[in-house]
Amino acid sequence: MFLEKINSPKDLNQVALSDLPQVADEVRQAVLNRVSIHGGHVGPNLGFTEATVALHYVFDAPTDKIVFDVSHQSYPHKILTGRAKGFIDAQSMDAISGYSSPAENPEYDNFEIGHTSTSISLASGLMKARDVMGGHENIVAVIGDGSLSGGEAFEGLDTVSELGTNLIIVVNDNEMSIAENHGGLYRDLRQLRETQGQSPLNFFKSFGLDYLYVEQGNDVLQLVQAFRRVKDTGHPIVVHIHTEKGHGFQPAVENKERWHWSMPFHIEDGSLRDQSRGGEYMPLMLGKWLREEIKRDPKLVCISSAVPAAIGFGPEERKAAGQQYIDVGIAEEEAVALASGMAKRGAHPVYSTYATFLQRTYDQISQDLAVNGNPAVINVIGSSIYGMSDFTHICFFDIPMLSHIPNLIYLAPTTYEELIAMEAWAIRQEKRSVAIRVPEWGVLHTDQEVDKDYDEINKFKLDHLGSRVAIIAVGDFYQKGLKVKQLLAARGIDATLINPRYLSGVDEQMLQSLESGHQVVATLEDGSLDGGFGERIARYYGPTAMRVINFGVRKALYDRYDVQQLMKDNHLLDEQIADDILAVLDKA
Amino acid sequence: MFLEKINSPKDLNQVALSDLPQVADEVRQAVLNRVSIHGGHVGPNLGFTEATVALHYVFDAPTDKIVFDVSHQSYPHKILTGRAKGFIDAQSMDAISGYSSPAENPEYDNFEIGHTSTSISLASGLMKARDVMGGHENIVAVIGDGSLSGGEAFEGLDTVSELGTNLIIVVNDNEMSIAENHGGLYRDLRQLRETQGQSPLNFFKSFGLDYLYVEQGNDVLQLVQAFRRVKDTGHPIVVHIHTEKGHGFQPAVENKERWHWSMPFHIEDGSLRDQSRGGEYMPLMLGKWLREEIKRDPKLVCISSAVPAAIGFGPEERKAAGQQYIDVGIAEEEAVALASGMAKRGAHPVYSTYATFLQRTYDQISQDLAVNGNPAVINVIGSSIYGMSDFTHICFFDIPMLSHIPNLIYLAPTTYEELIAMEAWAIRQEKRSVAIRVPEWGVLHTDQEVDKDYDEINKFKLDHLGSRVAIIAVGDFYQKGLKVKQLLAARGIDATLINPRYLSGVDEQMLQSLESGHQVVATLEDGSLDGGFGERIARYYGPTAMRVINFGVRKALYDRYDVQQLMKDNHLLDEQIADDILAVLDKA
Repeated sequence: MFLEKINSPKDLNQVALSDLPQVADEVRQAVLNRVSIHGGHVGPNLGFTEATVALHYVFDAPTDKIVFDVSHQSYPHKILTGRAKGFIDAQSMDAISGYSSPAENPEYDNFEIGHTSTSISLASGLMKARDVMGGHENIVAVIGDGSLSGGEAFEGLDTVSELGTNLIIVVNDNEMSIAENHGGLYRDLRQLRETQGQSPLNFFKSFGLDYLYVEQGNDVLQLVQAFRRVKDTGHPIVVHIHTEKGHGFQPAVENKERWHWSMPFHIEDGSLRDQSRGGEYMPLMLGKWLREEIKRDPKLVCISSAVPAAIGFGPEERKAAGQQYIDVGIAEEEAVALASGMAKRGAHPVYSTYATFLQRTYDQISQDLAVNGNPAVINVIGSSIYGMSDFTHICFFDIPMLSHIPNLIYLAPTTYEELIAMEAWAIRQEKRSVAIRVPEWGVLHTDQEVDKDYDEINKFKLDHLGSRVAIIAVGDFYQKGLKVKQLLAARGIDATLINPRYLSGVDEQMLQSLESGHQVVATLEDGSLDGGFGERIARYYGPTAMRVINFGVRKALYDRYDVQQLMKDNHLLDEQIADDILAVLDKA
Repeated sequence: MFLEKINSPKDLNQVALSDLPQVADEVRQAVLNRVSIHGGHVGPNLGFTEATVALHYVFDAPTDKIVFDVSHQSYPHKILTGRAKGFIDAQSMDAISGYSSPAENPEYDNFEIGHTSTSISLASGLMKARDVMGGHENIVAVIGDGSLSGGEAFEGLDTVSELGTNLIIVVNDNEMSIAENHGGLYRDLRQLRETQGQSPLNFFKSFGLDYLYVEQGNDVLQLVQAFRRVKDTGHPIVVHIHTEKGHGFQPAVENKERWHWSMPFHIEDGSLRDQSRGGEYMPLMLGKWLREEIKRDPKLVCISSAVPAAIGFGPEERKAAGQQYIDVGIAEEEAVALASGMAKRGAHPVYSTYATFLQRTYDQISQDLAVNGNPAVINVIGSSIYGMSDFTHICFFDIPMLSHIPNLIYLAPTTYEELIAMEAWAIRQEKRSVAIRVPEWGVLHTDQEVDKDYDEINKFKLDHLGSRVAIIAVGDFYQKGLKVKQLLAARGIDATLINPRYLSGVDEQMLQSLESGHQVVATLEDGSLDGGFGERIARYYGPTAMRVINFGVRKALYDRYDVQQLMKDNHLLDEQIADDILAVLDKA
């Protein structure tokens, strides 16, 4: 077995060229071993296995720099740079992240990368610095698996062409994004594939870039040949390689979308190891409701930016929605502007994506949408400490990001029924740009009547009027508010409970009314304390005698945390919250 | 005079084709009349005059929809859609904004647009909604004057190609951005110009788009002919028109960069009406220092995204900086990623741009830069109520945007000397991603020694220890803090004065120390209250007996406000602040 002897690219260089296919097979088995036991990105890594072996065979990392776009296709790279154990040994898997990470391996991983379309732009910086400081290393930017359609990638292509020095852009063209590819550009890629790269119409060349096509992108020997040709080039060149997503694992080849990422599975047949999962999950329930609403409302159009599964739009659901569904591919900025334009023209656009990817659209939400007040709806998915916990995929900084943008209404439903009522209102009203924080933490139902109309902006809902302590519990932390209320009741305090519903403003009238009969207001939010909802409440009461205590998550970088530990560290366990409130009350 | 009779495109349609050159001349004179008296965008509008006349002659607005990118080239459109008075009558100019604005004219202006590269994406929404809802109008997206290089424009091109129905993209190719164009793409445009659109390598066609070239983009009759050819097309088509920026006004033709935008001037020779302007201006002083530092530090590279003048990098200064200066064009995302990559490779990148444009890079700052902790420096320009006041160019929402991003240090210098000390530290240190809020409001100097080292993160500076009231005055509002302190002194209160310096965190130790001897803490910031610095202070003291009062600007949309009135409305006049503080102190 070669892998046992390969601890770095230097070891790989000792392998005879003719043995590289065997090395690639072993890398592929290691990838499969990890994802089948631990879960992770399957198709992207299987497809890029040979290319990674060839890259490390030809280029001299760490002197030469390889930058992986998205970096969910960097597993083979990790295996070849001293981290094979995390793929072979089930006990060591947790120590290795699913993305490139200098924290994990500063020598070979150049950047923490989890968002898409960044490799060329980041590489342009390595390139410019090399040229200014004097250096001769090769810089390689890997891009593909759908991420070429993101604006930052285009901007990067435009710049590196002008810089004009050594840079090798490896375009991993597997004909796919997470779901299928979208956009006119992919027609050009197809034409290039069909003409073996000879088509005179060439997107990359139109940027002034040199170009080389490799049809057999899963043939390690062909790739070695191609990379040797471009190594030490004096100008930027695109190496367009045609690969097969999921290569070497039949289930992943046959159903590329299903196998982009997977929970742990049996290698024999691809069946999931844990079949017990399921049950209610709010984003999927919302998607189901939206598909029903599409039938009732011919103006409704659901927009996705390459993550349709986030609200359960699988291939069949997309087909059924027809014209009323559009996936723009990995192009979040376009998705928001598209939604704004559609709303302007009288349609009912609803764009749903994860909060972490929505970061791409801060300006579009502010300028293209909210400044215009066009009535589009944005569903913010995953915004919770219970959401994705990877370093680059944290979703719980959405309130600081969205709630301070002027003229944007940001709503936080607490139950399924309230979510649907807010969604229906947001879609049908024609005056305001609305974002909705889709609950991630469990599914709470209510048998109470929920309001249908949210036109009275910033009107908080008083669910129980008690005294001394008022709890303002945001979104899916309303459940926590209920529990804390019970704990306080057991200690003789009948706490007031408020569902604020609006994250983008405060109900000054209600806050003022609390000044009689209350000494402490506590805010609970499933997100960042800094710039969060609670701080606005603290500001309101700042000049008064009211004591305010905000519960949420401290600003910091987080990576694959344990949720219970995170809660404990941030004093978010129910008992901790109750204790802290009582401590403040004692001193008030 | 034709203009007197043209109150809408319908009136224009009554004009004989052969008279259109005359109409265009009158429009040009009207544009010149306004900008010479009122100031505004000169070159972009003069170059797009004929095209606008032709567009409105051929298309049937408001049924047909025209979307202007950046929209600083929409002056001729305004003149032809009932707003000529704002260009002819000196008394009526203030009523008309410099950008397209539905608030001003809901019939003909489809979007409030001030940021670049958005027209195609917004038009894609109009297009999709039209197709879903059933409609047959033409949709026209105008783009150019450098804005084609922004990522959102590319994403839009990619999407409209896939949508495949009627859309006319007018590319106004004037060979310029605000300064010269940058990026490989512009080489393709040049090749297309040189081959009269016949080059087989065609950027637009590589997206699957149809294409038409018009060499004489300032010949209204040729343009009418071209637009008539594409009207009612059943698929997306690019009409690439070659125009001259500043056409018809010789000074603007000869010095295109100088005449992109201008203060009021004498039409005869282009000399400024008000020569008295000048004096010290902090961003320019910073630029000057950077140009000196470039000579001292060979690793330093100044990055611009099409607004080099923001820190005084004119053509000569850029030339002198050589390799140590780079303009990526309108491509802010690339600028941040480039900076991160350069810092990773050991260079000293400094990216300077206006806060409003920095909104484009929220995700890049978070992911490409701060998550990686690469030691790049970002100078945030214009962040003040004294900055640009146009609807789409408000810069004072930067603190909510930047200060809550984990692992980013955001500094607010109060004086020129402190600015330079912070800048020098930020450039030379190698551990942290740093943004600096360059003061906009006047230039304060200090003869006190300023700290050279800012490694002790979140360490506030106690400038005067008094009692009862503590004023924490941020950045260029430190001046205001000094004045308020004086006013309080006159009323017998010796207030403590603190320069917090760090916007991205709080000095808990210092805040705690204030609890003895102080009843009220007041925060002063030249920016948004919501999500601002002050709210974090309010949160800190929430559970305590300390009274906190935050001064800043209320969250709202703002447009061409009067600064004094804005101050008054937000209780930011020195006397108002002192009064408000005393009122809180009285009740404490």
